[in-house]
Amino acid sequence: LRARERDAVRALLDDLHAADIADLIEQVDSAERDELIEILRPGFDGEVLSYLNPDLRESVVERFEPRELAAAVAELDTDDAVDLIEDLDEETRAQILANLPDEDRALVQENLTYDENTAGRMMQRDLVAVPEFWTVGKTIDHIRAATDDLPEDFYDIFVVDPLHRVVGAVPLSRMLRQRRTVRIADLVTDEVDTIPATMDQEEVANLFRQYALVSAPVVDSAGRLIGVITVDDVVHIIDEEAEEDLRKFSGSGDTGVFSGIADIARARVGWLTVNLATAFLASAVISLFEGTIEQIVALAVLMPIVASMGGNAGTQTLTVVVRALATHELSSANALRVVGKELLVGLTNGAIFAVMVGVIALIWFGPMIGVVIACAMIINMVVAGLCGALIPLGLDRVGVDPAVASVVFLTTVTDVVGFFAFLGLASAILL
Amino acid sequence: LRARERDAVRALLDDLHAADIADLIEQVDSAERDELIEILRPGFDGEVLSYLNPDLRESVVERFEPRELAAAVAELDTDDAVDLIEDLDEETRAQILANLPDEDRALVQENLTYDENTAGRMMQRDLVAVPEFWTVGKTIDHIRAATDDLPEDFYDIFVVDPLHRVVGAVPLSRMLRQRRTVRIADLVTDEVDTIPATMDQEEVANLFRQYALVSAPVVDSAGRLIGVITVDDVVHIIDEEAEEDLRKFSGSGDTGVFSGIADIARARVGWLTVNLATAFLASAVISLFEGTIEQIVALAVLMPIVASMGGNAGTQTLTVVVRALATHELSSANALRVVGKELLVGLTNGAIFAVMVGVIALIWFGPMIGVVIACAMIINMVVAGLCGALIPLGLDRVGVDPAVASVVFLTTVTDVVGFFAFLGLASAILL
Repeated sequence: LRARERDAVRALLDDLHAADIADLIEQVDSAERDELIEILRPGFDGEVLSYLNPDLRESVVERFEPRELAAAVAELDTDDAVDLIEDLDEETRAQILANLPDEDRALVQENLTYDENTAGRMMQRDLVAVPEFWTVGKTIDHIRAATDDLPEDFYDIFVVDPLHRVVGAVPLSRMLRQRRTVRIADLVTDEVDTIPATMDQEEVANLFRQYALVSAPVVDSAGRLIGVITVDDVVHIIDEEAEEDLRKFSGSGDTGVFSGIADIARARVGWLTVNLATAFLASAVISLFEGTIEQIVALAVLMPIVASMGGNAGTQTLTVVVRALATHELSSANALRVVGKELLVGLTNGAIFAVMVGVIALIWFGPMIGVVIACAMIINMVVAGLCGALIPLGLDRVGVDPAVASVVFLTTVTDVVGFFAFLGLASAILL
Repeated sequence: LRARERDAVRALLDDLHAADIADLIEQVDSAERDELIEILRPGFDGEVLSYLNPDLRESVVERFEPRELAAAVAELDTDDAVDLIEDLDEETRAQILANLPDEDRALVQENLTYDENTAGRMMQRDLVAVPEFWTVGKTIDHIRAATDDLPEDFYDIFVVDPLHRVVGAVPLSRMLRQRRTVRIADLVTDEVDTIPATMDQEEVANLFRQYALVSAPVVDSAGRLIGVITVDDVVHIIDEEAEEDLRKFSGSGDTGVFSGIADIARARVGWLTVNLATAFLASAVISLFEGTIEQIVALAVLMPIVASMGGNAGTQTLTVVVRALATHELSSANALRVVGKELLVGLTNGAIFAVMVGVIALIWFGPMIGVVIACAMIINMVVAGLCGALIPLGLDRVGVDPAVASVVFLTTVTDVVGFFAFLGLASAILL
């Protein structure tokens, strides 16, 4: 009976896309996961591993024999195989490589010689390259004949010179429109964006985004065509980047819903420690005014408002500026204009909220406290706008990723300035 | 001389990709922008507008005559034309439409009948559809003959039945591998993902992401093929989504570095007002303990630490959960496990920071304050972990976008709980 149930599940799974099977593995708990993998084991489809969340992938990979894994990996395109293998520990990696067919092993190992997160790691090795003198007809005949060495799907034909340097790219749809006698070299698009194998994956994503590319040739240092990157891998990177940006902002580290508790806790401690240090800095500022607070307790009640509004307003500016830097909308040419704009926005909103907060504080604790908190609010929101723009621009200029450190610096400034302005003005005016 | 300079600039611009010209327009100031547009005016390339940031696009569009714009728009693919036209005001839109060739106008207007942000708005209308009985050879001949009606680039041939319903899709590269006599219907991939024209663009992006698609057919309510969506448009949407998520988190609204000051200030006021309300809620909690603070001013010095650590720890959980919900990694099947995990992470990090903060407070203000702040810290960080996971899950369940409102709810909870736990414990233990 048990066996029959398994057969039924297997039959259901056979109809699913690899991506959906990966989803299923992600959703179930770990006992069900073990069973699922047992059912999938015979003739396991390596593509399922490619679609699996990297945090879960390792524990799934451990359940297979190196030989089984090698068979699954051998079926994948080079780029997917490399993506899978690069995350494994040394030993498993060596075992899988040893069990791969010679040709696949050579290609995978060559990709692994490039740094992580570069075009060389991402590229697919199988591609269609033809010499300049070929015609459309000869190219089509070549593709019909050489079924085995071709990638599963491809979108461009690359035209190369005798030294295998890229002369141009011809989208399949453009080639198909031409008669068989047309020379392929006459179809090359105006300019082809070649990607050096050492280019960082974020830059690759920016190129694809900028020029709406579907595939692009990867070249070695001598300009020779060695691989191709297709847009599906880029979509993956754009997603990863967006996730990274969000995680950097909140300092939640490189862990997700599938990570272990210890890993998650550890990944977050760093950022929280930094936050603790800046919180103590704010406390130190408050302690300067202990005497004042003792006399007017209302200050203790209201002071978090000034700091919190500054922090929020600054973060608004920060997100916009960090994002504009990442997408190259912001450069040194228009930076000054943006800073000026944010200063004015800070002044505008500072004035609006100064009135709102001032009136409430006035009703609650009396007129002079209202005036003090209104002034402190304007000061802190102007500072927030200014720093929200200047901090990421400064970090970017000195070569630090502005997404990761901006928020700490910013909230430190808005807390310190907020408490200092409010309590300082209070002790000057009210005492 | 002036005219000769212009010719030189024009010659330089002619060599640039439309995306780079758009970048240039974005980078220069508004006087230079006017000049640049004058230079570009004769035979203006509509693609430049497609690549331009939407905030700037309107002011650029205003500088052209409707006739010029119509000529530029007519050259675009339907999807780009619609993207351009949908953002314009009624009057300009009508003028451009009136100046379009009849056929283009009909297609654009049809796309505009679909809701904003749906597949119907995004789709390209030109495509290659062939009946099931055609062979590879006949399809290629058809493409060679019908040069004019085809989209600039395409990646799949769609096979349709006599009612124009989608039977399957054949990637160009797969078709090219086959002999001319093979029937096209024999090449269709196992299953084709058809996209209803009413599908939301985020769902479209998820489909492309999930199955690594390059193009997909769009169908009307009767299942008839009416358009195609290609991956370049999806890349654009994924980018937009990521930006939106980040903006929602910080409440910076729908404005960017190219928006006007008044627009930016207005877009941010809403979120800041909400933040102000929650800040006053925290103040109200503090005011409950005015008497306690009057007696022990150290409490006023230390209390922001507890609230701030809770807010940060909660936001870390929040980002991970919101992101996992958006990418469908998190569902009701594994939600409970994730909540449990976050609770334990909160407990672990809460304990770690309780010790750190406790020791510092003990040295600074004495042993009992150290114990009080340590206990408050554990309580607030457990609550932060729990709420950081439960709030977005709850919002998602009731159909509210968890990205937009989560942070307000969360920091309200961590502020209130933080101040209440710390000041409450202090007045119970220390007084």
